[in-house]
Amino acid sequence: MMEKHTTGEMPIRIIPLGGVEEIGRNMTIIECGNDIVVIDAGLEFPVEETPGIDYIIPNTKYLESRKHKIRALIISHGHLDHTGAIPYIMDMIGNPTIYTTKLTKAMILRKQEEFPHAAKLRIEEVRSGDKIKLGALAARFFDITHTIPDAIGIIIETHIGNIIYPGDFKIETDAKGNPLQIDSYVKIGKENNLALLLESTNAEVPGFSIPEKTVQRNLEKIISEAKGRVITGTFSSLLERIIELIKIAEKYDRKVVIDGFSMKTNVEIAKELGYFKPKENAIISVERINDYPPEKILAICTGAQGEENAALMRIANRRHKHIKIQKEDTIVLSSSVIPGNERSIQNLKDNLARQGAKIIHYKVADVHASGHAYQEELKMMTKMINPKFLIPIHGYYFMLKNNADLAESIGMRAENIVPPLRNGSIIEVAKNKIRTLKESAPANYVMVDGLGVNDVKEVVLRDRQMLAQDGIFVIITVIDSQTGKVKNSPDIISRGFIYLRESQELLKQTRQLIKKTVEDATGKMHPINVTYVKDLLKERVGKFLFQKTKRRPMVLPVLLEV
Amino acid sequence: MMEKHTTGEMPIRIIPLGGVEEIGRNMTIIECGNDIVVIDAGLEFPVEETPGIDYIIPNTKYLESRKHKIRALIISHGHLDHTGAIPYIMDMIGNPTIYTTKLTKAMILRKQEEFPHAAKLRIEEVRSGDKIKLGALAARFFDITHTIPDAIGIIIETHIGNIIYPGDFKIETDAKGNPLQIDSYVKIGKENNLALLLESTNAEVPGFSIPEKTVQRNLEKIISEAKGRVITGTFSSLLERIIELIKIAEKYDRKVVIDGFSMKTNVEIAKELGYFKPKENAIISVERINDYPPEKILAICTGAQGEENAALMRIANRRHKHIKIQKEDTIVLSSSVIPGNERSIQNLKDNLARQGAKIIHYKVADVHASGHAYQEELKMMTKMINPKFLIPIHGYYFMLKNNADLAESIGMRAENIVPPLRNGSIIEVAKNKIRTLKESAPANYVMVDGLGVNDVKEVVLRDRQMLAQDGIFVIITVIDSQTGKVKNSPDIISRGFIYLRESQELLKQTRQLIKKTVEDATGKMHPINVTYVKDLLKERVGKFLFQKTKRRPMVLPVLLEV
Repeated sequence: MMEKHTTGEMPIRIIPLGGVEEIGRNMTIIECGNDIVVIDAGLEFPVEETPGIDYIIPNTKYLESRKHKIRALIISHGHLDHTGAIPYIMDMIGNPTIYTTKLTKAMILRKQEEFPHAAKLRIEEVRSGDKIKLGALAARFFDITHTIPDAIGIIIETHIGNIIYPGDFKIETDAKGNPLQIDSYVKIGKENNLALLLESTNAEVPGFSIPEKTVQRNLEKIISEAKGRVITGTFSSLLERIIELIKIAEKYDRKVVIDGFSMKTNVEIAKELGYFKPKENAIISVERINDYPPEKILAICTGAQGEENAALMRIANRRHKHIKIQKEDTIVLSSSVIPGNERSIQNLKDNLARQGAKIIHYKVADVHASGHAYQEELKMMTKMINPKFLIPIHGYYFMLKNNADLAESIGMRAENIVPPLRNGSIIEVAKNKIRTLKESAPANYVMVDGLGVNDVKEVVLRDRQMLAQDGIFVIITVIDSQTGKVKNSPDIISRGFIYLRESQELLKQTRQLIKKTVEDATGKMHPINVTYVKDLLKERVGKFLFQKTKRRPMVLPVLLEV
Repeated sequence: MMEKHTTGEMPIRIIPLGGVEEIGRNMTIIECGNDIVVIDAGLEFPVEETPGIDYIIPNTKYLESRKHKIRALIISHGHLDHTGAIPYIMDMIGNPTIYTTKLTKAMILRKQEEFPHAAKLRIEEVRSGDKIKLGALAARFFDITHTIPDAIGIIIETHIGNIIYPGDFKIETDAKGNPLQIDSYVKIGKENNLALLLESTNAEVPGFSIPEKTVQRNLEKIISEAKGRVITGTFSSLLERIIELIKIAEKYDRKVVIDGFSMKTNVEIAKELGYFKPKENAIISVERINDYPPEKILAICTGAQGEENAALMRIANRRHKHIKIQKEDTIVLSSSVIPGNERSIQNLKDNLARQGAKIIHYKVADVHASGHAYQEELKMMTKMINPKFLIPIHGYYFMLKNNADLAESIGMRAENIVPPLRNGSIIEVAKNKIRTLKESAPANYVMVDGLGVNDVKEVVLRDRQMLAQDGIFVIITVIDSQTGKVKNSPDIISRGFIYLRESQELLKQTRQLIKKTVEDATGKMHPINVTYVKDLLKERVGKFLFQKTKRRPMVLPVLLEV
């Protein structure tokens, strides 16, 4: 137990509640005696095995039973994989004060408006250089470059050294190609740094990431040379790039149309807070797009992943009220392909190309760059921060492993690098030793589906998967409880199994089988054992349908006695 | 109508029944007067929008009404996207003679054994240089390199020129780096070539594909240097590579274990037909893998895409009876990532790496190459064959478009290049003119699900998708037909919607709503209008559940009068 240690030797616990063994729902706990600091509270989008789910969020059980110890929730930047769980978990963990930067604060508060019944948040603004006391711990902050303004790295000071959490980052260069923020990392590197929590998203990718500056330059070239409209599709989360696009449009005297709810919201917030200062009327509403000649328009849209109702997809499918593709349009897909979206993106490209648009995507020109450090950047960061221990976080096992191997390749000792963690792993770090405990914090998926948080269990998902494969087959049989005979013909309701209109013969045979199965069973049965008959029906009908169709619909028998 | 033309001016019809607007289910018709030649009959694997489906095959309606004209089905090579529809369609199109090469024939016949009730096939063996008369048409054949032995290109001779169908191909090089088969393409290029049907799979990818020779060399290096076992995962369809791996194993005195049903079958067929001649005992059964020291073993497994029950996945999940990962094992994933499989492959890599295996994949070394021509190869082929007209086939719209653009870039006239086709498009080609007719052949999806061919309709798929989202909610209400009152409490059966055990309050409220809805409606209704009450229940209960949960399960009301 922690409490047995005197302060001098008290080890620190570091627990990733989410974000390892996966991409998304990032959340990390730092615990020291009676003080806990939580970093980030993200969500993850549903995966193949969780059909119908809206989001997956971290499991906060460990925190719930220790909520009196929580001194802060610190948020590194305004992306949903770092903020998205906030509306769902704050009540449960005692609504601690949130510390974050100005833009991130505004984005969190805007999102919270969609949850009128959720706790009222207390958010304190911090910036690079600030220091806040959090019980026996303290937090300091440093600037980081990601893909959204106001991303911030976190230093947690403890009695045995600093724990450094850069969050999501890349090493960006300035216009001359010089790396940015290096000085401050080197300066931090001179402190007593116990552990570095290092993201692993691109730990498999050799070299340096493409600088965002290069992307911006290429976009500027495309926009300056285009004869007609330029329509760009990108992620609403890439706020740095969106702001840059607006600036480029101004430079080349094009009006900007922003289409997509999340993108509009993000741009509005950034504008209100002064992160960029467009001229009056630089941004026009989409309804007015046809009031200007094509060469005076830059549209920035959501939907580059082919999301069904996003702006670009509506344009592609000719369902957009105001934007119809014209021959001279240049479409720039300024985004990567998120695994799983290949078909939708193919569709998007096909439908746009069919209408004669010229399409530029990241495979033919550098119009997108990742916001996450590649191998050389990860090695640089590790070298500069120079921690005693390295803890790879954020990514699947293989990515974490790659990140660990990178650290070893630049000379860190293997015993000072934490091997890939599981969600909920409890790391105990002392002055000269780091180890992963046998016990762990609960970390299984907490699923959000509609209004329900954690009310969708394994069994519900399994049923959804089964239903998606071969559908459902409901049998309603009314039995005369006196005679055990089936009254009338059994009702059959089926969905997703077979085209009923063309399957009359199969249904007829199934009805006969039902009647026979029930009456054979109930013949000498007084009273009728309903559970037994139902199980029997389920088995026999299931087998029969499989024989006839090689499909296995979910068979649900209903027996009514009258 | 065709029949009006005299032979001299009779145009030829070319119809892609499948394989355009998609990847897979390749099938192309060439029709001239009273003669039809069909090329390939492939299947496509299910897509996101077709849950629970086994395969999608071409729609053969156009052929069914013209089956007396069909002179041949010619198959270019033994991959399922070119052969897989055969068991399902031959009866419907009059079971024409199949012409193909020796290996392809054996593979088709082996597959057909799984369909004892299907038509007995007549297959004639052909080889490069052969010529067969097919009514007014004739077919000749030429060697092509793909990823399976015995792939063959097809020349259909017509009264106005040749139609060339290379099928799936790449321009492969020999050990010295010289391109293979070029001479024969150049020779064909000197004939009167009316149209080239050119695949577009990689028409978006610049440059040349990696030669298979390079991959083989790299695999040899890895195998020769490995201290322990080498376990390779690849596609069973890459038969050329599998044979090469067996040869490498022999060279370095390793026994070969082949694990995976389809892979074993393919290797057996190739061996029986003499495509390679291993020494006795070169291939051992998987049960004997542990009888040899690790450095004497090369295992070739299916499952490099993380397919659930394939060999490599069972190894990764520690469910394999005979193969457990050892520290010195080298795993080579000799395959690409098929879109949609990213998560499963991530899982595969994670689980293998967790057990300490060293993993080599295509991103870190050239251990895989595509079997489909890249841009430079496509341009070469077009140049060499030198057709009057180019018809891009095999691929999504954007790929076909790219292929068309490539031809234009090397000087073909735009009006001689057919713009991207739809499945079922009818192209009419005359001596000096090519056009796409307004009418088209039926080409919608024909789906195979279990034993059913084409019995799964749109509505069934829509239901499966809905069920996968929010499940189903069945209400069984018994009404006293005299009084219109609900007898007992309504039964509710729900699957995939909500965890019932924790939702008692919701169910209670729903039952009250059902009772009230029914009784309000039936109060003054004699006789009871069952359809009306059911519709009302569906609407009210659906609305109520959405309000309470923000989910939309499929609501199915059952009313029974007693």
